[in-house]
Amino acid sequence: MKPQVHHIAIVVPEIEAALGLWRDLLGLPLTGQEHVPGQQSTVAFLEAGECQIELVRPDAADTGIARFLAARGPGLHHIALQVAGLDALLARLQAAGVRLVDEVPIVAAGGRRAAFIHPHSANGVLVELYELPPD
Amino acid sequence: MKPQVHHIAIVVPEIEAALGLWRDLLGLPLTGQEHVPGQQSTVAFLEAGECQIELVRPDAADTGIARFLAARGPGLHHIALQVAGLDALLARLQAAGVRLVDEVPIVAAGGRRAAFIHPHSANGVLVELYELPPD
Repeated sequence: MKPQVHHIAIVVPEIEAALGLWRDLLGLPLTGQEHVPGQQSTVAFLEAGECQIELVRPDAADTGIARFLAARGPGLHHIALQVAGLDALLARLQAAGVRLVDEVPIVAAGGRRAAFIHPHSANGVLVELYELPPD
Repeated sequence: MKPQVHHIAIVVPEIEAALGLWRDLLGLPLTGQEHVPGQQSTVAFLEAGECQIELVRPDAADTGIARFLAARGPGLHHIALQVAGLDALLARLQAAGVRLVDEVPIVAAGGRRAAFIHPHSANGVLVELYELPPD
């Protein structure tokens, strides 16, 4: 199983205004919208083929997403790759000197395990590794 | 036919060093690498499921890609959505007041027609609309 893009996260100041482009004009189906209490944010999911575009709006001022928005304005935040065998992959990355945000997986949306690679080691891109659910 | 993500472009200073992460450690298959004379850049394509990750390296200092790299460092540059009916879509976007980089389609890689939406109108994201080939 090769990794594939699971989602592309875009930080926005307002979900509804952003849906005016992505859903209404570009025609991407809105598949869900939820408040994520653990991250103090609201997320809307749009289907874009096999992967999703996630619009993320901060719900509080003292979060990483809110600081990103305040410092840089709206924009691309991270890409998530769906991978198998997250623990082994993280071990390989660490052995190769790749800087990880999460050396131990965190629990992401839907209960899946995930870990972020630091942009310093990934060409300036914040990369989420998102583990496939067990069969 | 709904739009789907065709590729995610990442600006890098060196292709080979970047492949050390994306191909060798993360396991994304390298499907091609080419010099794009019209854009004075070199591009490597990596398969990531249904869409691709494109690593873009500037080959000259006076290009948009080179200026992006000099000003902001490596990072996410744009996302491309594969769409049908590009002319009609551009007309709808213009009628809605969306700011376009290309009001008339340009010819992109592979001879396909494409046009960019300005980040000002797309939550800070440079969005390429990439037309499906005719059946």
